[in-house]
Amino acid sequence: MKRTTSAAELLLQLDRHSGVPLRLQLERELRRSVRSGRLVSGSPLPSTRALAADLGLSRGVVVEAYEQLLAEGYFVARHGSATRVAARRTHADSVAAPEPPIPVPRFDLRPGLPDLSLFPRRAWMLSTRCALAAAPNAAFDYPDVRGAEPARVALTAYLNRARATIARPDRVILCNGSAQGIGLVCRVLRERGVRAVAVEDPGHADQCTDIRATGLRTRRIAVDARGLRVDRLARTDVGAVLVTPAHQYPTGAVLAPERRAALLDWAERTRGLIIEDDYDAEYRYDREPVGALQGLAPDRVVYVGTASKVLSPALRLGWLVVPSDFVDPVAQAKLHADRGSPALAQLAFADFLDRGELDRHLRRTRAVYRSRRDTLVAALQAQFGVLPIQGVAAGLHLVIELEPDLDEETVVAAAARRSVRVYGARAYRANPRQGPAALLIGYGGISESDMPEGVRQLALAIAECRTSQPTGVASARADA
Amino acid sequence: MKRTTSAAELLLQLDRHSGVPLRLQLERELRRSVRSGRLVSGSPLPSTRALAADLGLSRGVVVEAYEQLLAEGYFVARHGSATRVAARRTHADSVAAPEPPIPVPRFDLRPGLPDLSLFPRRAWMLSTRCALAAAPNAAFDYPDVRGAEPARVALTAYLNRARATIARPDRVILCNGSAQGIGLVCRVLRERGVRAVAVEDPGHADQCTDIRATGLRTRRIAVDARGLRVDRLARTDVGAVLVTPAHQYPTGAVLAPERRAALLDWAERTRGLIIEDDYDAEYRYDREPVGALQGLAPDRVVYVGTASKVLSPALRLGWLVVPSDFVDPVAQAKLHADRGSPALAQLAFADFLDRGELDRHLRRTRAVYRSRRDTLVAALQAQFGVLPIQGVAAGLHLVIELEPDLDEETVVAAAARRSVRVYGARAYRANPRQGPAALLIGYGGISESDMPEGVRQLALAIAECRTSQPTGVASARADA
Repeated sequence: MKRTTSAAELLLQLDRHSGVPLRLQLERELRRSVRSGRLVSGSPLPSTRALAADLGLSRGVVVEAYEQLLAEGYFVARHGSATRVAARRTHADSVAAPEPPIPVPRFDLRPGLPDLSLFPRRAWMLSTRCALAAAPNAAFDYPDVRGAEPARVALTAYLNRARATIARPDRVILCNGSAQGIGLVCRVLRERGVRAVAVEDPGHADQCTDIRATGLRTRRIAVDARGLRVDRLARTDVGAVLVTPAHQYPTGAVLAPERRAALLDWAERTRGLIIEDDYDAEYRYDREPVGALQGLAPDRVVYVGTASKVLSPALRLGWLVVPSDFVDPVAQAKLHADRGSPALAQLAFADFLDRGELDRHLRRTRAVYRSRRDTLVAALQAQFGVLPIQGVAAGLHLVIELEPDLDEETVVAAAARRSVRVYGARAYRANPRQGPAALLIGYGGISESDMPEGVRQLALAIAECRTSQPTGVASARADA
Repeated sequence: MKRTTSAAELLLQLDRHSGVPLRLQLERELRRSVRSGRLVSGSPLPSTRALAADLGLSRGVVVEAYEQLLAEGYFVARHGSATRVAARRTHADSVAAPEPPIPVPRFDLRPGLPDLSLFPRRAWMLSTRCALAAAPNAAFDYPDVRGAEPARVALTAYLNRARATIARPDRVILCNGSAQGIGLVCRVLRERGVRAVAVEDPGHADQCTDIRATGLRTRRIAVDARGLRVDRLARTDVGAVLVTPAHQYPTGAVLAPERRAALLDWAERTRGLIIEDDYDAEYRYDREPVGALQGLAPDRVVYVGTASKVLSPALRLGWLVVPSDFVDPVAQAKLHADRGSPALAQLAFADFLDRGELDRHLRRTRAVYRSRRDTLVAALQAQFGVLPIQGVAAGLHLVIELEPDLDEETVVAAAARRSVRVYGARAYRANPRQGPAALLIGYGGISESDMPEGVRQLALAIAECRTSQPTGVASARADA
């Protein structure tokens, strides 16, 4: 039988001046000793009397600490024998290894991201303060699973005005970003017997994965310069289509008027559902944004929006406007998923909308991004001469085609070595080898003053990859 | 062929003093006219020249408005013929019916809810302001899917100190409340081939539904005064068990030391997973809270926590501490679910924890709830004499058994008529008819001064239901 461990061996460290009650300190030290293996599994503990004497504590303190550790399972007591350390595998107190810092590229040309430095911190703070001060106590209860009513009301007004939707507060469901919203709609579709959803090709690869995770299949439908090839929808068995009519991702195409009409016809004819992802429709620079499809057929369209592109993805604020027969099932799906999204941020967002802060922010940022786009296009033309640029009219990125002999991944890697973060178009295609090699170049994360140098570095990277024609025009210019 | 609609008939209302550009106003009015049916499907529109003249606008403004509505699909143009209204079913601009207000009971004895009026608005606001001011721009990007690092670090320190866990920031995953966290873990379990999860009986009915929604089956295991009947676990085929060791919901039992040991043994022996729902462990009034099971076996326990009971459910702040082999799959599941929870609230929470505000809030509220519990118990004893009260030691509610001849639902309904909201125990049981009729009486939502009257009204409601013995003791007292 093992001998009793003495207090001295336990190396229990108590600090009489820390302000933390000694009983609490003793409990923590005893737990630590068990976990570290200093108190060996199965070994008997010193008597409470002995330990109290050793440590200069009242016996009551030690008794209470032992009782606590008995209750928690660190110690065991059997009638008539000493209290022992429980016979358990012990675990060292693990100290977390510091997380490796994510390298920040000097020129961040990621697509689909707004300029994070433009986030209207002051206005958001004001709205948060006002919302928190004005909220009734009931606002701190479990939230309405569709989202706080003031937020649904404010959002309805905004969307009907700015996006030409036909929304009503009781058909709005706020989500943790648009991805969750699309996922919830897909769950409901599957419950209704839908088996496949059409998606754009090229399109959001992550959305495809999310849709398939709900048990639905995806059918990729080609996109050309006029948007989704709606004519091909009729040849599929899908019950719904996920589409980005205002600004196709990633090509930047706007769905052409006759295709909008054809899409609505398809939905009416087949009782199919259109899931309209309106993710960055607010950013159109040379003309007014195209109004939402939902406004033409609110019974056949689920409208999906997000604050990720117009404010910040960190807010995780997304919303759905759904046909009446989708309200309850989508709300039910949201309830199962997470009991609703955080209410306080929704109330802040409502205040932010009501004050016209989003309109103000959009006016300001639209001007910034328009100017950046112009500078970017000029920089690209200066480096590459005439090259096909797509998606210039709207959004936060554009697309440049690469010469046929260039490999996209090689270019992206070469750019990364020059601290230029840029995405290739391939990952967005059903068949990565189909279609020309191309780069998505975002201008949300780069200042105008950095653009010429960023583009120059990109051109140098491309030149390095142009092994077959090392003295090409762009290469010569980039080196100039 | 239909004649062209004139501008006058369109009743287009333009306001030259509103500050809204006339082109925008014209577009809105045209959309409204299409939707309302005033502009009939298929009918030709007035020429841009005629409409401009009618309205006193420049022709360019009308041309642009027409182009916009063509782009959006409200109008159609065919070569060589007039622009027409698209042939679509029209939708009246629906005006939302005001939502019916939810009746607020005078005496809210709902269980599982903190006092919403005690939410520390000022401290939360301060933390929000500091977090927003201190956040680097990168904090506004897509968040780390596990949650903002400062929040995971602060939470780790809090949990290791206050809940005796062995947590590390890289094993913490922040969620939209604990329900989402449990759902994500269940998804991962199912992917690993687990088919069933054990749950407590009585227990959280919603959690059962959520677990089954992930494709897992649930096996109900009985709970008695010492918590989960762990001995019955071995007879099931489950790969995991969801348990509330610190404070069983709804009975209020604390899992007994020998059962804690047996549960850990079961997990080691069967390689099973313990999902420890620690939802309101911080509220224990007569003794220190029992430390988390996770601290004894961090490789076999998923720790689940939430701010819902200690701060507010509206925050939707929940967290998991998971074994190392669960980190990546759970993070992946969270990514698919919603790309991560809102980051700004997490940063505010980190600041709140770092300042010691949660400790301060718990000290304050623990004293409030302890006092309320004492008053409630006294009021119950005054009205009902000696009656079995369970779950008094901890949490935010207690349980009273009803006399055998009373029907729970009838009592709950009678109480509601007296503006007393109280929950029956039945809904928490696998077999509602099993076990005694009982009421869960929460004291989070009622002030001490309201308690005597609330309990008196409850007693009157019970007396009304006691049809077989209308002159019983409690009845007589309640009428006194």
